[in-house]
Amino acid sequence: MTPALGDIGKRILIGRKLRSTQLGETLLPKKIALPVFASDALSSVAYAPDEIFLTLSLAGLAAYSFSWKIGLLVAFVMLVVVASYRQNVHAYPSGGGDYEVATVNIGPTAGLTVASALMVDYVLTVAVSISSGVQNARSALPFLAGHEASVAVGLVLILTALNLRGVRESGALFAIPTYIFMAAIIGMSVWGLIRLANSSLPQAESAGFDIHPEPGHEVFTGLAAAFLLARAFSSGCAALTGVEAISNGVPAFRKPKSKNAATTLLLLGAIAITMLMSILYLASKIHLRYAEDPATQLYRDGRPVGDSYNQQTVIAQIADSVFSSFPPGFYLVIAATMLILVLAANTAFNGFPVLGSILARDGFLPKQLHTRGDRLAYSNGIVLLALAAIGLIIAFDAEVTKLIQLYIVGVFVSFTLSQFGMIRHWTRHLKTETDSAKRGKMMRSRIINAIGLSLTATVLVIVLVTKFTHGAYIAIIAMAVLFAMMKGIRKHYDTVGREMAVDASDQLTLPARVHSIVLVSKLHKPTLRALAFAKAARPYMLEAVTVDVDRSESEALQAEWEARDIPVPLKRLASPYREITRPIVQYVRDIRRQSPRDVVMVYIPEYVVGHWWEHILHNQSALRLKGRLLFTPGVMVTSVPYQLISSQAAEERQDRVDRVAGQVRRGARKSSGDR
Amino acid sequence: MTPALGDIGKRILIGRKLRSTQLGETLLPKKIALPVFASDALSSVAYAPDEIFLTLSLAGLAAYSFSWKIGLLVAFVMLVVVASYRQNVHAYPSGGGDYEVATVNIGPTAGLTVASALMVDYVLTVAVSISSGVQNARSALPFLAGHEASVAVGLVLILTALNLRGVRESGALFAIPTYIFMAAIIGMSVWGLIRLANSSLPQAESAGFDIHPEPGHEVFTGLAAAFLLARAFSSGCAALTGVEAISNGVPAFRKPKSKNAATTLLLLGAIAITMLMSILYLASKIHLRYAEDPATQLYRDGRPVGDSYNQQTVIAQIADSVFSSFPPGFYLVIAATMLILVLAANTAFNGFPVLGSILARDGFLPKQLHTRGDRLAYSNGIVLLALAAIGLIIAFDAEVTKLIQLYIVGVFVSFTLSQFGMIRHWTRHLKTETDSAKRGKMMRSRIINAIGLSLTATVLVIVLVTKFTHGAYIAIIAMAVLFAMMKGIRKHYDTVGREMAVDASDQLTLPARVHSIVLVSKLHKPTLRALAFAKAARPYMLEAVTVDVDRSESEALQAEWEARDIPVPLKRLASPYREITRPIVQYVRDIRRQSPRDVVMVYIPEYVVGHWWEHILHNQSALRLKGRLLFTPGVMVTSVPYQLISSQAAEERQDRVDRVAGQVRRGARKSSGDR
Repeated sequence: MTPALGDIGKRILIGRKLRSTQLGETLLPKKIALPVFASDALSSVAYAPDEIFLTLSLAGLAAYSFSWKIGLLVAFVMLVVVASYRQNVHAYPSGGGDYEVATVNIGPTAGLTVASALMVDYVLTVAVSISSGVQNARSALPFLAGHEASVAVGLVLILTALNLRGVRESGALFAIPTYIFMAAIIGMSVWGLIRLANSSLPQAESAGFDIHPEPGHEVFTGLAAAFLLARAFSSGCAALTGVEAISNGVPAFRKPKSKNAATTLLLLGAIAITMLMSILYLASKIHLRYAEDPATQLYRDGRPVGDSYNQQTVIAQIADSVFSSFPPGFYLVIAATMLILVLAANTAFNGFPVLGSILARDGFLPKQLHTRGDRLAYSNGIVLLALAAIGLIIAFDAEVTKLIQLYIVGVFVSFTLSQFGMIRHWTRHLKTETDSAKRGKMMRSRIINAIGLSLTATVLVIVLVTKFTHGAYIAIIAMAVLFAMMKGIRKHYDTVGREMAVDASDQLTLPARVHSIVLVSKLHKPTLRALAFAKAARPYMLEAVTVDVDRSESEALQAEWEARDIPVPLKRLASPYREITRPIVQYVRDIRRQSPRDVVMVYIPEYVVGHWWEHILHNQSALRLKGRLLFTPGVMVTSVPYQLISSQAAEERQDRVDRVAGQVRRGARKSSGDR
Repeated sequence: MTPALGDIGKRILIGRKLRSTQLGETLLPKKIALPVFASDALSSVAYAPDEIFLTLSLAGLAAYSFSWKIGLLVAFVMLVVVASYRQNVHAYPSGGGDYEVATVNIGPTAGLTVASALMVDYVLTVAVSISSGVQNARSALPFLAGHEASVAVGLVLILTALNLRGVRESGALFAIPTYIFMAAIIGMSVWGLIRLANSSLPQAESAGFDIHPEPGHEVFTGLAAAFLLARAFSSGCAALTGVEAISNGVPAFRKPKSKNAATTLLLLGAIAITMLMSILYLASKIHLRYAEDPATQLYRDGRPVGDSYNQQTVIAQIADSVFSSFPPGFYLVIAATMLILVLAANTAFNGFPVLGSILARDGFLPKQLHTRGDRLAYSNGIVLLALAAIGLIIAFDAEVTKLIQLYIVGVFVSFTLSQFGMIRHWTRHLKTETDSAKRGKMMRSRIINAIGLSLTATVLVIVLVTKFTHGAYIAIIAMAVLFAMMKGIRKHYDTVGREMAVDASDQLTLPARVHSIVLVSKLHKPTLRALAFAKAARPYMLEAVTVDVDRSESEALQAEWEARDIPVPLKRLASPYREITRPIVQYVRDIRRQSPRDVVMVYIPEYVVGHWWEHILHNQSALRLKGRLLFTPGVMVTSVPYQLISSQAAEERQDRVDRVAGQVRRGARKSSGDR
């Protein structure tokens, strides 16, 4: 390694160490923990109000008066969920996520259900957050209209690249934009309320529009009305996603960990509710209109507004009114919203591979995702997440409203099972606990979790009923597929494990003799090396074997063989149909048939090259052959490498990567402790 | 193998044998050879006239009077090219294509240039033919409008699937649609001429339209006019693609092969010219109008016709007029045109992999494309061709006019170099030939090829000048890239060949001793087998090695090792950072350093599984490790397979595939002879 490269390696290392330290060894005070874990939960106020308004729009303006009531209902659910998760935080200070809670207290099937649900929702977090970010950006930059999907895909690709390069969340990085967002939204709300009190708050640009009810919703009463309100409520519940993040992160808090985490959770809930209600209140005060398909649903002077109308998001319309006399405020709000949505998507890029690693540990995903436990595993997870999210963005053209229909199902499956698990947790502990003070606390917790369970289960049912045909079925199918796949993988590992298990009777039964074969295509240096190595192993029998694909070539080979007086006999296998693999496999099987107690060792000379494209140019027949030979019992395949000059650079490169990766891992392990 | 499967195998085999026989052993009479080789050349009359008209449209209606003159010029070039290739046919009765002619007579660089040009043009043949087919289909089925690219991609995918499944051209399959097409076009022309003579031929639907000249072409004189006419001529020359196909197929003709091939070539030329001129003549008689962008270029009553006008292809407009009183005739012409265009695309699917195989034989493409010489090689070629064609179709939205700009450059590069090669061929033979009758013939041939060279070179220059900025540059860049890539591959093979060549001083230098290592992660059956096999080989030293990734697991392993009293020492390698690969590579290197004359053999227990997805679940660490160990000189890596139960079914499946493939290959070889 050159000194310069060593320096770079160290700098990478030191840089990483410091950054990991900030997050790991120095435990997080509440004021940093809040933004670190809150971006996902808070960012949803950027799209939840929009979804409430546009669902209500289906019934025309009459339904708008329900917006703040729905908001209150969402806030109530939020409070109950927060209260419930405060119990999780106390019971699992180790940061057991919903997957652990469900697995430990209900069983592996429940755990796997939660895992499937969470995986689907991680994908949707990326798709929804990024799409909403682009939608908000479009409010400030109208020229993005029509290119939403491309821009969203581009953003996902950037996030993917950053995460593949190993950018991890760090306290400071997350804290600043989250606080800016909170300050922007709350500042906007306060300023809006002041202007409202002074009667100087202008109406929204869309205030003058009329909304005609869609066919079937002309009369806003009875079951249809209830169903529509339930749907609006379901969409509004998108505000709850991400609340569970803190319960996974308890170990990162300063002591007393559980108490601090619980307080932060409450704080998060309070801020989210405040922001949501402020936005809903201001929106109704400026008479904002928001429709799924503005071109045909919104009417100006009795005529549809048409395609030329660029509908701004709810936040953008409010910011536009509030900061009517101070345009930079508008741009700040939009920029902060955009940024926090991207950060929210990024949390999925961190959470998804971690979940994958835990599932791999439990045998539900390929083992290398866990055992390797480093860059490689993360890369696979990151790429899978990005591909799935990009697929969704393209399929739904980056339309938040359509993506929202798939969202939340997973989160509420996870909420519900987690709460059910918590009830069991308390019941189990109550059986052994004798201290009456502690018993009282546990019983109180159990009641809270029971309330949480009944509410989240109810919301889950509402979400399923109102959204199933609108897209939730896709999410459910995806969960079912993931569930079945993971179950299948686990079953496979179990079967293989049993098949390979050694029992008391298994002995080291030695084969009688080793019969060695060196495969030869030409007489070049790799062949000579393979012959020499094979001879050095002193087998019972050694022969060189070539396949007569081309008669003249084989004869030339034999002549050279004899001329050089090579002390290994050369056997030519007939191949009338120019095959290579079959005659060799047949020959090896014949040897095995004649002396079944012997073992056959096949030496294959291989070229070691430096670049992947060189690999395409070589060794293809060897690879195929090896693949076929391994199916025959009693056969070993030995690769005798011949290092071409180009391989040296590649080896040095690989060594360097290994060394740096090792150093980084050391740094990361130190700081993350036993997490 | 079950009896039922055996039957299927035989049926596949027998089916294949018969089909190959029809094409191979029974040599083709001219009446079958013509359609077999003609679909590409004849199909181009489906788009060449269109391109002539729409280029002329740029100068307005005034330029239309030149259409038949341009047609005559194209016909003249066609005649000269046919005459030239008749010389090729006589000189290379073995069917040496342009690549062989150029390589043998000019040199490998010229050959490689021809090969690059042909590869690019194979891709364009698919893209242009399929796009034109869809355009013609749209004339009959207007609902296809707007979905041309998707339909075209779908057609390419169907062709790809058929070719991957191994459908080869067969005489009958090709003969029928080609004759139907010829009958349809010539029948339409004759009927059209009869109606014209009776003055009962109606005008084209577009006859009443006016065409305004595009900016820059208002005055149709001087250099601008000449340039436009040259461009129209260039586009019309698309009619010449595919003429060279017969010269590759001489061995398939009945004896006297060369004479029959030459006659067929002449016949092909005559038919193509007749069809082209008939179409141009009828088009002018029905006052057809055809523009690149009809919505804005065509005027009705002084106003552009707009987007609602569905412009039919030239053939469709003629068929519409000629068969005004007999609509089935119109649909027959369109269906026949569509079909022959798809067949023309299919010829590229046959030609491209054959060219690839020849190039691989000469070391310009990865060797496995040649040596495997069967399904696998063809599959790669087919998939590559399909991907490239699909890419072009999507990039150019299946617009024939845009794709045509890239086309023909390659064909004329190939024509020109081939003719130049032929001149050298005759000159070389004239040096040794003494028979004056033969000399006279050769000199006549040389003159014909010289005329061919000067004309095709002239056309090439015209094509380059008129089309370069319109898209030909893309084709030229693609050729240059292919050329450089193939040159690079050849250089790589040459370098590696030299590096590995054995010289007189090379000896079989035996290493001193073999030091064996068995890698162990768990104590299961695969491990026991690997230990037993390694012990059977009686190495100088044998030890089992495990990496201490998890301390408690390693200790459990050691305890079990001792409890079972395994007669091989177990060595535990420290791995503070949970790496697997690095400690092992380091350990192996240490052994080599201590005793450089020894060779290290690393045994890796591998699971052999039955499905690709099982493979993902296992052996990943082993594969990575093997990849790294091979870089170290003096190390061999031995895979000791442990066949899981699921692997048996896979082996039987693979055996079956091998057997059938072998039988098919035998059938194919028999029938194709030495081709």
